[in-house]
Amino acid sequence: MNKYMKEAVKQASLGIRNGHGGPFGCVIVKDGSIIGRGHNMVVINNDPTCHGEIMAIRDACAALQSFSLKGCELYTTAQPCPMCLGAILWAGIEKVYYGCNIGDTEKIGFKDSDFYKALNGGGGTELAELDRDGCLEIFAEYAARTDNIKY
Amino acid sequence: MNKYMKEAVKQASLGIRNGHGGPFGCVIVKDGSIIGRGHNMVVINNDPTCHGEIMAIRDACAALQSFSLKGCELYTTAQPCPMCLGAILWAGIEKVYYGCNIGDTEKIGFKDSDFYKALNGGGGTELAELDRDGCLEIFAEYAARTDNIKY
Repeated sequence: MNKYMKEAVKQASLGIRNGHGGPFGCVIVKDGSIIGRGHNMVVINNDPTCHGEIMAIRDACAALQSFSLKGCELYTTAQPCPMCLGAILWAGIEKVYYGCNIGDTEKIGFKDSDFYKALNGGGGTELAELDRDGCLEIFAEYAARTDNIKY
Repeated sequence: MNKYMKEAVKQASLGIRNGHGGPFGCVIVKDGSIIGRGHNMVVINNDPTCHGEIMAIRDACAALQSFSLKGCELYTTAQPCPMCLGAILWAGIEKVYYGCNIGDTEKIGFKDSDFYKALNGGGGTELAELDRDGCLEIFAEYAARTDNIKY
């Protein structure tokens, strides 16, 4: 097994053996070194955002003191859900290696497959526009500032 | 303006006036009461996952001591990006009210629109399968446990 994926599996084991959440571990690699680790902690933290990839991204960003992980690779025991893929995109990670696929994850009871459908208008949460004009005012105030840091 | 959206705008103002990140604020409402608040803190926290919706979800989950926000509504100054929509789905939030739309967000320099395309195979990060068999072992170990908490 690839040495970085082995470490991601180790993270996943740690998580499930301690009852932290699902069997999902992740590491982030820069220039051949692991700079971030994480595993699913949804149950133990009572926080639905604590997926392995999110935990590892936060760990790597803390290590680099940066919101950008450009030039990094991510290794994860399972194909990222839409939330994690979104986080990966925001972090600027260009390459992701995953072990199990979405079908495998569905088979052990997780909703990733449904959520990909939901993101393409296939049910899930209902979205409605409200008070757009009022919200555009705060967008305009932001756009007029000269000290914004782009991310 | 809707009173909950007004509070989301207040959160967004707080964020941009303090240089925390983009003009994105969010509140979560249960039974008519605001139980979670958040605004974008990507820049100040050096953390690409700190969007307004994620911050508000974490705040509401901490208040309820639960990873589920079933029965809650979310109000946000802008249409959620894929990461936040994923988090909303995991949290079980059924109704989302947003102010500005993805096109508005694109106009002030954010990449949400590109990221929705990326989630549908339109570029962005490259994904590759690696060591699926080894990772399936940890899935099997998880599936065989009797004390898993479903989320």
